[in-house]
Amino acid sequence: MSFGIVDMDLALGVLAGDRLSLARTLSQVENGTDEGKSAMDTLFAHTGKAHLVGITGASGTGKSSLVNQLARHVRRPAKELPPRRVAVVAVDPTSPFTGGAILGDRIRMRDLAGDPGVFIRSMATRGSLGGIASATAAVVQVLDAAGFEMILIETVGAGQSEVDIARLAHTTIVVEAPGLGDDIQAIKAGILEIADVLVVNKADLPGVENTERALRGSLDLAHPIPHRFMHHGKLETIAGVNNDPDTSESTWVPPILRTVAIEGQGIPELVDVITAHRAHLERTGGWEQRERWRLQTELDILLQNRLMDGFRSRLSPGAIEQALAAVQSRKISPFQAVEKLMSCIG
Amino acid sequence: MSFGIVDMDLALGVLAGDRLSLARTLSQVENGTDEGKSAMDTLFAHTGKAHLVGITGASGTGKSSLVNQLARHVRRPAKELPPRRVAVVAVDPTSPFTGGAILGDRIRMRDLAGDPGVFIRSMATRGSLGGIASATAAVVQVLDAAGFEMILIETVGAGQSEVDIARLAHTTIVVEAPGLGDDIQAIKAGILEIADVLVVNKADLPGVENTERALRGSLDLAHPIPHRFMHHGKLETIAGVNNDPDTSESTWVPPILRTVAIEGQGIPELVDVITAHRAHLERTGGWEQRERWRLQTELDILLQNRLMDGFRSRLSPGAIEQALAAVQSRKISPFQAVEKLMSCIG
Repeated sequence: MSFGIVDMDLALGVLAGDRLSLARTLSQVENGTDEGKSAMDTLFAHTGKAHLVGITGASGTGKSSLVNQLARHVRRPAKELPPRRVAVVAVDPTSPFTGGAILGDRIRMRDLAGDPGVFIRSMATRGSLGGIASATAAVVQVLDAAGFEMILIETVGAGQSEVDIARLAHTTIVVEAPGLGDDIQAIKAGILEIADVLVVNKADLPGVENTERALRGSLDLAHPIPHRFMHHGKLETIAGVNNDPDTSESTWVPPILRTVAIEGQGIPELVDVITAHRAHLERTGGWEQRERWRLQTELDILLQNRLMDGFRSRLSPGAIEQALAAVQSRKISPFQAVEKLMSCIG
Repeated sequence: MSFGIVDMDLALGVLAGDRLSLARTLSQVENGTDEGKSAMDTLFAHTGKAHLVGITGASGTGKSSLVNQLARHVRRPAKELPPRRVAVVAVDPTSPFTGGAILGDRIRMRDLAGDPGVFIRSMATRGSLGGIASATAAVVQVLDAAGFEMILIETVGAGQSEVDIARLAHTTIVVEAPGLGDDIQAIKAGILEIADVLVVNKADLPGVENTERALRGSLDLAHPIPHRFMHHGKLETIAGVNNDPDTSESTWVPPILRTVAIEGQGIPELVDVITAHRAHLERTGGWEQRERWRLQTELDILLQNRLMDGFRSRLSPGAIEQALAAVQSRKISPFQAVEKLMSCIG
């Protein structure tokens, strides 16, 4: 494997803490260029140190403000702790970090924007199947190699792709808020199953008790811990890795915290819980287990893309288009079209 | 290609309108069994007639009640139109159709449940990458072959996977409601780009004017029509099909309707708009264009799964696990692991 001088420079720049190199590398990696891949090959050996924290929840929960305040508090801890370098990766199209909203959060971010220990990256939210999760994984690895000690990954938390992105994290925080239409309906069982920490934000609003009670009830129903390493059909089949629940991990009971993010209330307590969860994972072997799960997911996506590219290059031009035309005219079924295409390449 | 007697019976049962055969076929197809594939090969020639209508929106918008009322109105039209057979496919984990919520909607569904012209199917919402979209596409095709004239596909409408599912539809309805936290934040640009019809449900609540104004503003920003056939990187590369916007389609301006679903207000008007959109698509060639887009997506997913299965079967046992271990110990990068695995199979 050979490296171009430019790529080595990019990767070395990232390792040396150069922000311009970092931004350029992230763009290359996000776009899946050869330069980006080469840089990743160099940087990958330096990954595995950052604490990856996923923050997910519906729009209207004030999740972006919470991320903002978390980043601020990690940079300027109230106690005698050293400040940690923190990165924010926003995958939510409605997040003010990605420019999807027209609210005042940007202004509130200004005091963080000038801080060299903070880096904010918005992901493009359009892309092919699995493309966003894959690009997010790569971006997170570059930031990890660049020495950011905590990486906050913000997702909207409603669809399967967001659950896939949440699976990148060591610690997953699910954010709710009172008064979002119907409290019961807003609580998504699938999301609760992956939650390590639950936050009721906007806890100064009426209805906070109802929201918390509903969360607690849903949490009991969701049995979060045994499902954390739930069988993920495809992945398990690929690698034959046993993802059965680690019983030692079942001692972590997801706590429910109240916050008022825009006023900073409850944020120090939330940071403490996040830190405690990391310690718990390290103590119980859960850290390595989640690392393996994460890398397995990434390997799976990369393999899929690679196989598809290889397949395309071996087909004669127009072969897929002909198969598609036969399907559209109902001459053959989609399954039959796949068989036909497979037989074309022998 | 040979068919088992059982499969033929299943497919023939579906075509003859037998509900038990339909339910069994749907289960086989959803689980991707060989029986299901054989049934699909028989049934596929009978697809392409149903009007596929996607209904998407955040939880709390009353989307499920809207789907319920739409189904009821299509069955019992107010005018002198004949009733149409209607199916509901619920992909939303918070939908009362899928059992995710504990509300009274089930009770309201009872009068539909006894009607042989109505069929309701809930999708399992857990699955591998692309798995839900693929299974939904297959389920919709079976219902199409079974003679349901309108198929309502309900999704939660926030993540990329929901956008992928929405792309299955000929007509996509995006539902909003007043008072869902912050109106502006609740409106998702990515979703608006695929909207053919916008509905402000719960229009009897205060704030309806604000919600409608915000929707209209976002709609202008989103330029929905030129983006409907936006380049979908991967798919376009596969088939080399030109998905450029059909200029003849750009005459459809997504209307904004107000409804109060639980009281049936605005529902006849919504059905009229849905019908008008179908007529528009048929007149402008948009119907065939969307059909092709839909089948192209399906072919892509089937190919990916097939390639992955073939690859796995050619690797020696434990090969992926070894590669994963090397990645986890940071000896090689994920990209390098993929190269290594590819070279194993020659």
